[in-house]
Amino acid sequence: MEPIIQQLILSDTDHPIRACSNVDLDSERTPKKIGMSYLAGFLDGDGSIGAQIVERSDYVLKYQLRVSVSFTQKTRRKHFLLQIQKELGGKGSVRERPDGVSEFAIVGQNDVGWFLRQIAPMLHLKKKQAYLVLKIIEQLPLTKNSPEKFLDLCTLADHVSELNDSKNRKCTTQVVRERFQDLKVMKE
Amino acid sequence: MEPIIQQLILSDTDHPIRACSNVDLDSERTPKKIGMSYLAGFLDGDGSIGAQIVERSDYVLKYQLRVSVSFTQKTRRKHFLLQIQKELGGKGSVRERPDGVSEFAIVGQNDVGWFLRQIAPMLHLKKKQAYLVLKIIEQLPLTKNSPEKFLDLCTLADHVSELNDSKNRKCTTQVVRERFQDLKVMKE
Repeated sequence: MEPIIQQLILSDTDHPIRACSNVDLDSERTPKKIGMSYLAGFLDGDGSIGAQIVERSDYVLKYQLRVSVSFTQKTRRKHFLLQIQKELGGKGSVRERPDGVSEFAIVGQNDVGWFLRQIAPMLHLKKKQAYLVLKIIEQLPLTKNSPEKFLDLCTLADHVSELNDSKNRKCTTQVVRERFQDLKVMKE
Repeated sequence: MEPIIQQLILSDTDHPIRACSNVDLDSERTPKKIGMSYLAGFLDGDGSIGAQIVERSDYVLKYQLRVSVSFTQKTRRKHFLLQIQKELGGKGSVRERPDGVSEFAIVGQNDVGWFLRQIAPMLHLKKKQAYLVLKIIEQLPLTKNSPEKFLDLCTLADHVSELNDSKNRKCTTQVVRERFQDLKVMKE
């Protein structure tokens, strides 16, 4: 047994209530560093890696691909989301939703790319989503003058959503393709 | 940046589709080891550490304290629960529930104690529950001839449930105390 674990168990065994309180107080005073392996497990268990197709009337192609990573917790545990944010150098934002749940979200290709490149190799359940989103991010510049390429990436976004068990998505590749056909933006 | 991460990023950037497929295939063939830090994050995000008061007519005190650790996932990802079980030396059991969700549960003081002693120091959100359950496990032998001590541990079980945001629990310390009074098992 590692000495630190043994020590924790022994102190807990000797004075369980006091030890328990000490742990809590200590962790509130100086929160233990979270670390990337832990965060990978937390993301697999509780987080979400997404790529949404969002309508944007001011865009040439009328749609945007929005990539994101998010974590939610009851607002009473919002402090932990803030701690994660801090350990990630302050990236992303934490907001309180009206339903008593708080959300820490990293949005946008730069920050999401930065985060996923570090964590993707450590994921188990959401590894596919991570690499699909990284692929979308990497290829986004190629969509600027190519509706066809944009549709390619939309199919990857559809795939991410399927892996996430998402339902009731309005904006799918099919919707975008039909809009592109109406707008006649694609080569015949 | 650590070399391994850098290498993964480079290979992913160079050949994203191929890299993405390779990762998936590889992870299916030879699952990457999970590790305790990851598992701590996964438990904080998705798992549950519990101590239930269960009615047992065949017990002298009519109630039992049942400690458990569990993880749930949609049954299509049951393979991952089986992988966790394997890495924990086959402890616990995995079952498919009728609602399309599978559950990996470790039950009983020996196995739960063994697991929590390793993982408790690495937890963030469920550290309190872990140490409370370890305290219950440690003191269970003292309850054999002491309804008073049993009630003490029931209050710890209540505390665990509060921390878990549990609602609608039937068996609380109060219920047990009233039953003990009816049965006149406690010293006056």
